[in-house]
Amino acid sequence: MSDVLRFIDDNLGRFRSELYDFLRIPSISAKAEHDGDTRAAAEWFSARAEEAGLEATIHDTPGHPIVVAEWRDAGPEAPTVLIYGHYDVQPPEPLELWTSPPFEPTERDGRIYARGSADDKGQLYMHVKALEAHFATGSTLPINVVVLAEGEEEVGSPNLVPFVEEHAELLSCDVVLISDTGMYAEGLPSLLFSLRGLAYFEIHVHGAVSDLHSGEYGGAVTNPGNAISQIIASLHDAEGRVAIPGFYDEVVDWDVETRRQIAELPHSDEAFARELGVAALTGEDGYSTLERLWIRPTCDVCGILCGYTGEGAKTVLPNHAMAKISFRLVPDQNPDHVRALLEAHVEAIKPNGVTVEVRELHGGRPWKASLLGPIFEAAADALEEAFGTKPVPMGGGGSIPIVVEFEERLDATALLVGFSLPGCNLHAPDEWLPIDNYEKGIGALAMLYEKLGTA
Amino acid sequence: MSDVLRFIDDNLGRFRSELYDFLRIPSISAKAEHDGDTRAAAEWFSARAEEAGLEATIHDTPGHPIVVAEWRDAGPEAPTVLIYGHYDVQPPEPLELWTSPPFEPTERDGRIYARGSADDKGQLYMHVKALEAHFATGSTLPINVVVLAEGEEEVGSPNLVPFVEEHAELLSCDVVLISDTGMYAEGLPSLLFSLRGLAYFEIHVHGAVSDLHSGEYGGAVTNPGNAISQIIASLHDAEGRVAIPGFYDEVVDWDVETRRQIAELPHSDEAFARELGVAALTGEDGYSTLERLWIRPTCDVCGILCGYTGEGAKTVLPNHAMAKISFRLVPDQNPDHVRALLEAHVEAIKPNGVTVEVRELHGGRPWKASLLGPIFEAAADALEEAFGTKPVPMGGGGSIPIVVEFEERLDATALLVGFSLPGCNLHAPDEWLPIDNYEKGIGALAMLYEKLGTA
Repeated sequence: MSDVLRFIDDNLGRFRSELYDFLRIPSISAKAEHDGDTRAAAEWFSARAEEAGLEATIHDTPGHPIVVAEWRDAGPEAPTVLIYGHYDVQPPEPLELWTSPPFEPTERDGRIYARGSADDKGQLYMHVKALEAHFATGSTLPINVVVLAEGEEEVGSPNLVPFVEEHAELLSCDVVLISDTGMYAEGLPSLLFSLRGLAYFEIHVHGAVSDLHSGEYGGAVTNPGNAISQIIASLHDAEGRVAIPGFYDEVVDWDVETRRQIAELPHSDEAFARELGVAALTGEDGYSTLERLWIRPTCDVCGILCGYTGEGAKTVLPNHAMAKISFRLVPDQNPDHVRALLEAHVEAIKPNGVTVEVRELHGGRPWKASLLGPIFEAAADALEEAFGTKPVPMGGGGSIPIVVEFEERLDATALLVGFSLPGCNLHAPDEWLPIDNYEKGIGALAMLYEKLGTA
Repeated sequence: MSDVLRFIDDNLGRFRSELYDFLRIPSISAKAEHDGDTRAAAEWFSARAEEAGLEATIHDTPGHPIVVAEWRDAGPEAPTVLIYGHYDVQPPEPLELWTSPPFEPTERDGRIYARGSADDKGQLYMHVKALEAHFATGSTLPINVVVLAEGEEEVGSPNLVPFVEEHAELLSCDVVLISDTGMYAEGLPSLLFSLRGLAYFEIHVHGAVSDLHSGEYGGAVTNPGNAISQIIASLHDAEGRVAIPGFYDEVVDWDVETRRQIAELPHSDEAFARELGVAALTGEDGYSTLERLWIRPTCDVCGILCGYTGEGAKTVLPNHAMAKISFRLVPDQNPDHVRALLEAHVEAIKPNGVTVEVRELHGGRPWKASLLGPIFEAAADALEEAFGTKPVPMGGGGSIPIVVEFEERLDATALLVGFSLPGCNLHAPDEWLPIDNYEKGIGALAMLYEKLGTA
């Protein structure tokens, strides 16, 4: 391995400069006017994968293309690792809040600032460079590798599951390796043991045929704004639990060992609250903050719109109210089941005189790993060697719905090893990735491939 | 009186056509670009009052001018009637919902369609024409008359109370006569016995320093969208009562006689619900629909804004939520007291981890009349003679805060006699006034002046 690591060390400057070319392409998948840029990013990535020593193909989809780059010289007896990532990025708006332009990578304070640096171009490209280091130094990599880079992650991956279904043989693998998450803290490499699922709804409350004068009609009809508030308030009880009957029926109690490991992580509620600017942290009774974030489900308003919201005192009794509500789910909750429970609950508690409609906008199942066995041991060893300290286990509060789909459809183990840091402004202005993590991470991944050969 | 009524009858065509000139002036007080039009309406009204036989003065204010037109030939021993109305109108938007242009008066189905036809140019101008009929026929009007027409009613009359204070002698009177309301039903003249007061607030809930990712932070902080829903839901109990402690302490029980009269009015809950397009009417237990609208206080959401309200599933945990809440008040509730009660309630029930701020936007006290005594008898007689049927007593759900100010500051009796009809689209597209009511109303007012001389 020393040749490989020396190669990486000798080429760090070039690895950064290549990444900056990748980050300069505004591959914003949500915006049709950037469709050309998104395709350009796919082509750029495919060409760099070829140069590194993989065989790359660009697959068209009804949306943005999927790049698949293969190296199968380890032979049919060797394990195969599918590396998944995405080359598309979130829109950069609001632009005025960026310190340096989102698509002009800029180094400040040991960080690479650019849209996509952390999510996910930077982390995806680390894999290409780690593979290049093996191929360029003639190391005998003990695993076959398939890199799958999609261009629609930021718009809900609508074409990915169909692609996986259609290309099950091409994508057949033992491990799905994903670097699209972060480390628990600076200098503390981490292994992810969970991701929450998502169930996202709009609730619409409809009242009279039109908006009414609040003086002429107020008191005699149900106000949709009051009604939607009543419905939202009914979603929690006084102990911070979600109060929809049946909501916890499928929640699996987390194992004692994981809860013990969570409790051992360095964490200060006081510092966390101060960082967020709130006087107190709140949540479900009986769980710590990290447990509330990682292993317990939630229900959050994402938006409410009703009636007159401009300046001044318009005395209107609105005839419509809308709320966007997202639930984060934990094993074995299922978004379809949550939808049915929510619909039944809303129908049961809704006040007379209004109609209520629940629309599902998005759903994804939760994921959970044991972090036991040779695959996770390999990852732990590689991270410890690269960062000089044992990785900690951590949960993920967010959702990457494709993870559980990969596991089930490809019958493989998902391994999530990420290198961004808390506060790295994912989906926000001034997104960044630590230069140190980019560079150490390439070494860690190169070692991880090696170790997965015998895992 | 027969000369006066014959004059009115002979001049109805001209009275309509003059009104249409008034209605053509887009005197939209809320819009600075119409300041010239608003002044033009004051000047037009002042000139017509002079032509009718009054002595008119335009008083400048820090906002739009106030026109005062006097006729005091009845002498110092005769009673003085102050006629109050307003020459400004609501903005006409949305324009595309008007069948004919808002400032081009159009007759259809026996109605005058135009912005301001009902509220209030049409009703204000009826007084000028009723007075003209007296002066033109040499009738010896037994009352002194002061017409006060303001141009800021639709923006909360910010300069009216200061003007009344400053000109207390000029405005000194025995009766304040206002035609800015409606009749209970077609062909059924009405005397108003109440107006509800208003207390209008914005409630702001503030959470973290910025919007948060609902996955990374959801479950550990209080969501301002959930919090504001909880606060709004807490404003009512299960019986439809306002649940703010102390809210009903100052509510005076209505007299049995008025409640009996309300119960006798022709009213169908079924028809009312059908007209509004709702499956059921709702409200405070123990009160009929008309009582809920007229003699009981309410709490209604007028608007809510929180987080992301565009298309699709943005998984944001917002750091701010805002609700506009209006209370309609009944005697002897007071907006200042309601503010204090609301603030105390919100502070007591607000969840941890957020701050809550209550801003008062608008307030006005309720008004109540007994409908007993010679002044109301005079009005009842005049209406019966003009419309051929005894007037019914009715309450007003809306608010005209100046009424109680006039009563108290001028030590006068307020008499509210209006001629619009339910469904006349006040503040909405296709506002209308029945031609029949415009014409019969002028006769009714002419007779009323006569009768008030001996009341």
